Formats: sequence, structure tokens, C-alpha cells
Amino acid sequence: MENYRSQSPFSRFCLLPLIVVFTLQMDLSAQTSEKDADAAFIRKIYDRALTDGRCYPWLEHLSLRIGHRLSGSAGAEKAVQWTRSMLDTLALDSVWLQPVMVPHWVRGDAEQVRVSGSKKYGTFNLNALALGGSVGTPAGGVSAEVVEVKSWDELDKLNERGLRGKIVFYNRPMDPTKIRTFEAYGGSVDQRAYGASRAAKYGAVAVLVRSMTLRLDDFPHTGSLRYDSTFTLIPAAAISTMAAEKLSQVLKEEGKVTVFMKMNCQTLPDAPSYNVIGEIRGSERPGDVILVGGHLDSWDAGHGAHDDGAGCMQSMDVLRIFKRLGYRPRHTIRCVLFMNEENGLRGGKKYAEEAERKGEFHLAAIESDAGGFTPRGFSFDGDEAVFGKFFEKVSAYEPLLEPYGLKLTKGGSGADIGPLKGMKGLLSGYSPDSQRYFDLHHSADDTFDKVNKRELELGTASMAALVYLLDKYGL
Amino acid sequence: MENYRSQSPFSRFCLLPLIVVFTLQMDLSAQTSEKDADAAFIRKIYDRALTDGRCYPWLEHLSLRIGHRLSGSAGAEKAVQWTRSMLDTLALDSVWLQPVMVPHWVRGDAEQVRVSGSKKYGTFNLNALALGGSVGTPAGGVSAEVVEVKSWDELDKLNERGLRGKIVFYNRPMDPTKIRTFEAYGGSVDQRAYGASRAAKYGAVAVLVRSMTLRLDDFPHTGSLRYDSTFTLIPAAAISTMAAEKLSQVLKEEGKVTVFMKMNCQTLPDAPSYNVIGEIRGSERPGDVILVGGHLDSWDAGHGAHDDGAGCMQSMDVLRIFKRLGYRPRHTIRCVLFMNEENGLRGGKKYAEEAERKGEFHLAAIESDAGGFTPRGFSFDGDEAVFGKFFEKVSAYEPLLEPYGLKLTKGGSGADIGPLKGMKGLLSGYSPDSQRYFDLHHSADDTFDKVNKRELELGTASMAALVYLLDKYGL
Repeated sequence: MENYRSQSPFSRFCLLPLIVVFTLQMDLSAQTSEKDADAAFIRKIYDRALTDGRCYPWLEHLSLRIGHRLSGSAGAEKAVQWTRSMLDTLALDSVWLQPVMVPHWVRGDAEQVRVSGSKKYGTFNLNALALGGSVGTPAGGVSAEVVEVKSWDELDKLNERGLRGKIVFYNRPMDPTKIRTFEAYGGSVDQRAYGASRAAKYGAVAVLVRSMTLRLDDFPHTGSLRYDSTFTLIPAAAISTMAAEKLSQVLKEEGKVTVFMKMNCQTLPDAPSYNVIGEIRGSERPGDVILVGGHLDSWDAGHGAHDDGAGCMQSMDVLRIFKRLGYRPRHTIRCVLFMNEENGLRGGKKYAEEAERKGEFHLAAIESDAGGFTPRGFSFDGDEAVFGKFFEKVSAYEPLLEPYGLKLTKGGSGADIGPLKGMKGLLSGYSPDSQRYFDLHHSADDTFDKVNKRELELGTASMAALVYLLDKYGL
Repeated sequence: MENYRSQSPFSRFCLLPLIVVFTLQMDLSAQTSEKDADAAFIRKIYDRALTDGRCYPWLEHLSLRIGHRLSGSAGAEKAVQWTRSMLDTLALDSVWLQPVMVPHWVRGDAEQVRVSGSKKYGTFNLNALALGGSVGTPAGGVSAEVVEVKSWDELDKLNERGLRGKIVFYNRPMDPTKIRTFEAYGGSVDQRAYGASRAAKYGAVAVLVRSMTLRLDDFPHTGSLRYDSTFTLIPAAAISTMAAEKLSQVLKEEGKVTVFMKMNCQTLPDAPSYNVIGEIRGSERPGDVILVGGHLDSWDAGHGAHDDGAGCMQSMDVLRIFKRLGYRPRHTIRCVLFMNEENGLRGGKKYAEEAERKGEFHLAAIESDAGGFTPRGFSFDGDEAVFGKFFEKVSAYEPLLEPYGLKLTKGGSGADIGPLKGMKGLLSGYSPDSQRYFDLHHSADDTFDKVNKRELELGTASMAALVYLLDKYGL
């Protein structure tokens, strides 16, 4: 300070800027040490997840001991009870079940779908799974000529004249040139969702849909359809991509092909079920919630390991890791395992209703529902009124997350957390590598052995790191 | 232009800046349209790779019809002839075999490694593979007490007193907290490389090394060792991580454990082999080469599918894609399938010698030798004198490659292209996701079914995109 006295008038004139610079520097070095502290804590999260993770053995139990768990099934009930009991071991502040009535669709006997009387190939089976929510065929099955279409235009041109009494075969493949496979899915899944009613409109009697996968193999991939009740509800099934190729080939070679379908799936009355919830209460703002979750239900094939056992076990492990690290959050950190994402979204809707009713503000909600693959980042969404500001704030975290291979982008979030959007918090979807997801999605091949331990654990750590930053800095 | 006449003197004064701005704009819009053209061509490369790729069926053939191909083996010879015949179908400007003498080590009979006479567990086998280059045991095997160490310090402290006549068991695991698994590998592989001679220095009679993998399973992972000829050459084998855990546990429980090892591996005289090379000659600078390659040899377990059948098939497919797209490169684009990366690097050394002799400047060399997983980017290396400038230039490509998930970083390149470094071109290593690589690396589990078609194809496209930019803009 002594030097001030010997300064020239010009220097004295410059004192203010000096002070400003000094203050700025202090501020910057405070910021730097905060950043170092954040980096160190995030490092701890990853170390813990990679050396002492539970998501993988938990997923093993869920997959191999409980298995698939369609809403309303015994598997879903077991999964609810078991995940609740696991959350109970974590010394959280609360663990509870949130009741919700869910659709109860049952597949019944194994589907029979076969080409009959081909000149060249005789009679042969097409590997098929009824679409979720589909009605069954008449008890004796249905037999009809098949008409292949690749677009709605083709369908509309064929019209009642070409389609009455026929089975419509939707065979537009997912586009392999999309780098993000979710885009390819988005470009084809309309056939599965709307195909039945749009065919019924023209008098078709049933529908076959090429499975939503980029792989050529013999697994049918199911998924939900949406009936338009204006038209007759006709049965619909997905066939494997190999079956689709074969059927298309026979149609090309022989012109006319007859398929027999028999399915006795049906929708029973709604059944009681639950969202499974656990939380660490916030020390400063307990009414503000940061949610991390996935969906506990799955289709009734395989283990539902990637879809979405992975996301559920990761979400539970995020809370466990915070507890193990002795982290005391400012906001309430809540893990939610939603029921019924696959065929109704009842869990997500119920959860949002209840949150609204209790006046719980959801500062942020992160869903992991894109498989347990290597992390690539997070995509963010939110109500227009607030999203720009939020995204700018969150983008500033990127340098802390980049060393872990994470990018932050605008985009979709998750189906279950969608109903929270009106609450004007931040929504986020965890985005792992998407290349292998649709190979397995909704098929008997979505089994535990397809999940890599480290990839799953890295996802857990990535989610925990984002939760930590959101909790520390708010929005 | 008419408006100029009515301009105020001040405006006229500003004409020069206007002209500068105008010229800049023209320049910028020329740059923009170049960028659009580049983006469009890169898109074409990806479209082709993802809809009409050959790398996957080629890898299927290499894996299932030829199988593993250690230098000097019949498999290696078959792989040379078959890849040459495949390159011959691509209408390249030249395809040739470059002779190179390679080490010829043979494993002999299946290794016998067993714990004998444990009080609690009796006698039991440890799944093992001799390390590449290891000498065999005496014909009747060797039986000795085991001493476990996790660091060189421990080894040095045990010294001759603690190690003479013993079998040293190196059991330092790869560090699971490293995000990039290659770092974890780098932190442990010294045990495999130097363990035998450092133990022999103290009179040990044999060595067991924990397999270099982050996974806990029962596959032993082999790999080369480096003897220091100052000391006795003693036999060395990798044991699976499960075997390592078991052995460690028994040592802890019983204090003293005896292991019996019998291996009759040996090194035969050097054998003749080849690098397999194909090229599209450059239209403007045929003497300047852009190389894309992998190594054709593999360890003698599994299929060598990820290591490095993947990199070889991708490199061949890069040239095929350029031909299919009718691309006429300015520089010579050359695919090189190096022989003997795994245990000698003779192919890489020979190739660099020959290039030097012929005065071929290697503008750039890209090696794919980190598995056929989803692309994450490229790392770049080069001679100090030129690297800074090169990396700056290459970094400018990033916006064109980012939509495909690629990042460009400084780092290592590839073992086979290392000997080209003195030529002062750019070296690059293709960097796919590394999480699953060491699960399979050098083990019987590195089989074709572990390779995902899209992930492999995306790698091919990524390499082709980088080659295209390097070819168009030079360095």
C-alpha cells in the first residue's frame, strides 16, 4: 500500500481501474477455486461410481431374478416391492410408493403368424409379437391376403378398393443414414403407432409392421399402438426385420401372399400399481426438487435391461452415491421410478399431478431412458418462458463435464418427466451413445448380458455430476 | 453502382473499407460454399458407409473363415492372401504385397497352470495364456511357491532373498477410475512387459501376471513381453482376473501357495510375411501419400475381431468408398494392412524404411487400432517441428466433423505408423469409444459377435471423412 504515495497524478487517476481489476481478480480466483472444488467433487462422484457402484449388480437382480415387468403384471409388482426395499437400505430421508392405476394389457398365448401356401416356400412362420394394446384376432385366427406399403401415400392410394378384407404390411425401414438412431426411430415409428387404425379406416382386417430396428435379425420388437376409436379396432403385430424382408420378397416373387394370424391378447380392467420414490431432503430449499429417474415398467420380452432397468438402477445409485459421499444437498434430490411409461404414461401423469397438488416446485428433472450405454451428454428442454435463461446457465457447466465425454445440447428430455414441463423448471434427458439401443429395444434380446458394467456406471456418475451442479448453483 | 454518385464526401472517404468488406464477403461466401460442399461430400461418405458398407461382411469373413492370425502362422498367411484378393476387386490403381520377415513364436500345447495342494481348495487350475514371446517351462513343468506383488517397489524390497526360486505373481489391477481405458492400460501393462526380466534378476523361476482388463471374468489376456537378455529368460503367463483374485485370496488365507506351470511355447526362426497395400494414385501429387491402415496380425486367441480386424476392414472400405463415390484424390490414398504389430512391429518398420527409400512423403497417416466401437474422434501427433502448425490447420475441420460425434485432440497415433514420424507428416489415431475394448483385447473373447455393424461402419466413414479433408486441403 505504501507505493500509492509515490504515484504520479496519472497513476492516481488510474486507481479506480486498479481497484476494479483487483476486485475482479479476487472474484476470478474465487471462481477458479470454486471450479476446482466442483471438479474435485465431480471426480469423487466418478471414482465412487466406478469403484463402488451398485447399479450393475442391482440391474442383474432386476433382470435375472425379476425379469420383464409390463404394467399390471406380477413382474411389475415384484419390481415395485424390490426397488422399494433397496431404497429402504440407503438411509434416505423418505421412501414411498405413489399409487397409480395402470392399463393392464396381456399378451396371452404366443402369437401365430405364418405365410400359408406360398408356391415356392410353402407354409412358414414369421417371428412376431403383438403390438402393446392390440386386440386379439377372432378365436380361430384371421387369414387374408397381404398388401405391402411403405408410406401413408401408398396406403391412401390403395384405399378401400385395395385394402378391404386385407392384412396391411407396413414395411418402411428405419433410415440407417441417421447418425442418431432416435431420429431414425422417429421417422418410422408412426407406422407402429397409427398403422392399425389407418388401415382399419379402409376396411383392412389386421396389420403387420416391420420391427423398429436397424439390425437385420429375427427378433420382433413390440411397442404400443394408438387406436383411433372412430374405426374398427383390428389386431396388429410387429414382425422381425428378417421376416419382413422375406415376406416382401415372396410378395415380389409371387404377387399374392396369404397370411394367417392368431393372437389372443386383450386389455383387462386397469390395475393398481405404484411409482417408487425415494429422496434426500434439501437442507436449504426442501420444497424445490431435483428429480432423477427412469421407468420401472418394461415390455413383456427379454429383461427390459436397457429399457429401462438401466435408467432406474442408475437413478437409485445417484442417491446412494450422494449418501456415501456425505453430500448434503441444498435442494431435495429425489429418485423416481415411474410406472407405465411404455403403454399409458400413467405414472408420469400421476406424479406431476401430485407434485402440483403439493406445490412442489421441480427445479429440474433428469430422465435416463435411452439405455445404459457410454455417456455422450444431456439434452435439455423446458417451458419457453424460462428455457433460454436456464440453458445458458447450464451450458456454463460444460467445461466441468467435458473431461467425461459429455456435451450439453438442446433437445428432448423424457416421456415420464414431460408432464412436469408446465411447472417451468428444467427438463433433461440423459443421452448415452445411441448406436446399439434399437438393436435391443422392446425385444426379447434386451437382456442383462447386453449391458456393460462400466458404461452403466459412467451413466450413473454423469447424472450425479449434473445433479450436483444443479443443486449447488440452482437455476 | 449508381448510388455512388450521390454519396457525400464522407461516404466517398469510406469507399475503401466498403470495397474491403465487399471482397471479404465474397471470400467468406466462397468459403461458405466450400464448407457446404465439404459437408455434402462428408454426408455422402456416411450415407455410403451406412447403406453400402463392406467392412462388416469382410470382418465376418476374416473372423469366421480365417480366424486369428499371429505373425508367421497359417492364419496370417491366409489373411494376407485373402485381403490382397479383396483389394484386387476394388479397381484400385495398385495392390501389392510388401515382403517382411517376422518373428515366429508358437504357443504349443495349452498352458497348464494350477495351484497344487491348497489346504482349503485342494488342486485347481488357473485360466492362463503364455505371454507372447515367452520361453517355455522345462519339459516337466516348474513348481514353486508364489509371491504376490503389486508394485516394483515391493519386488525390489523382496529382492533375491524373497524371490530366488519363486514364481512372482504381478497383481496390480488396471485403474477403473480412468475414464479413458487406454490410460488404465498404460498404468498396468509394465507388469506384463517387464515383469519377467525384473523377476529373473532376483532369481525367480517364472512369472504370472494378472490379465490387462477391467472386467472380472475368466478369460486370460495375452500380449507381448520384453526380455532383458542380461537376465535368464523365464516363462511368463497371464492369468484371468478371476484366477488372479482367487490366487490372491488363497495366498491371504494360507500364506504359502505352490503353483505348477507347464508351457511349451517357443520362438522359431523368423518367417517370411507381408504388409498388404492398395492405393488410389493422386491426380496432382502422386508422391504425397495419405495412409489409412490397421494391423492384420492378431494374437492367437479369439478372432482378433476388434484387435485389429476392425481397423483393417475399415481401412480397405475407405478406399472402396472413394472409388464408389468416383472421388479422384489429389494425393495418393493408400491402405496399408501392417503385419506384426503385436509382437515385433516389423511391418511398420519395414514400411517406413521402404517409404524413405522411395522418397514417398507421407503427408498424413491414420491408424485404426483401438477397436470397432462408436467413433469419438481422432488424436493427432507429429514431429515437433511441424506439429503445431498442422494441428491448428486440422482443428479447423472440427465443425464439419462434430455432427458425427467427432472431436480432434492431441495425443498418440498408432504403433505401426510411429516409424513414419521422422518424415514430418501428420500422424493420427482413430479414437472410438474405449469402454469395452479391454474387455476383449488379446483374449479368446475378441470375437466377431462383439462387433456392432453400425459402430464399425461409422468408424469407416469417420476415417474417410478425415482423409477427404486432408486430401482436399493438404497441410
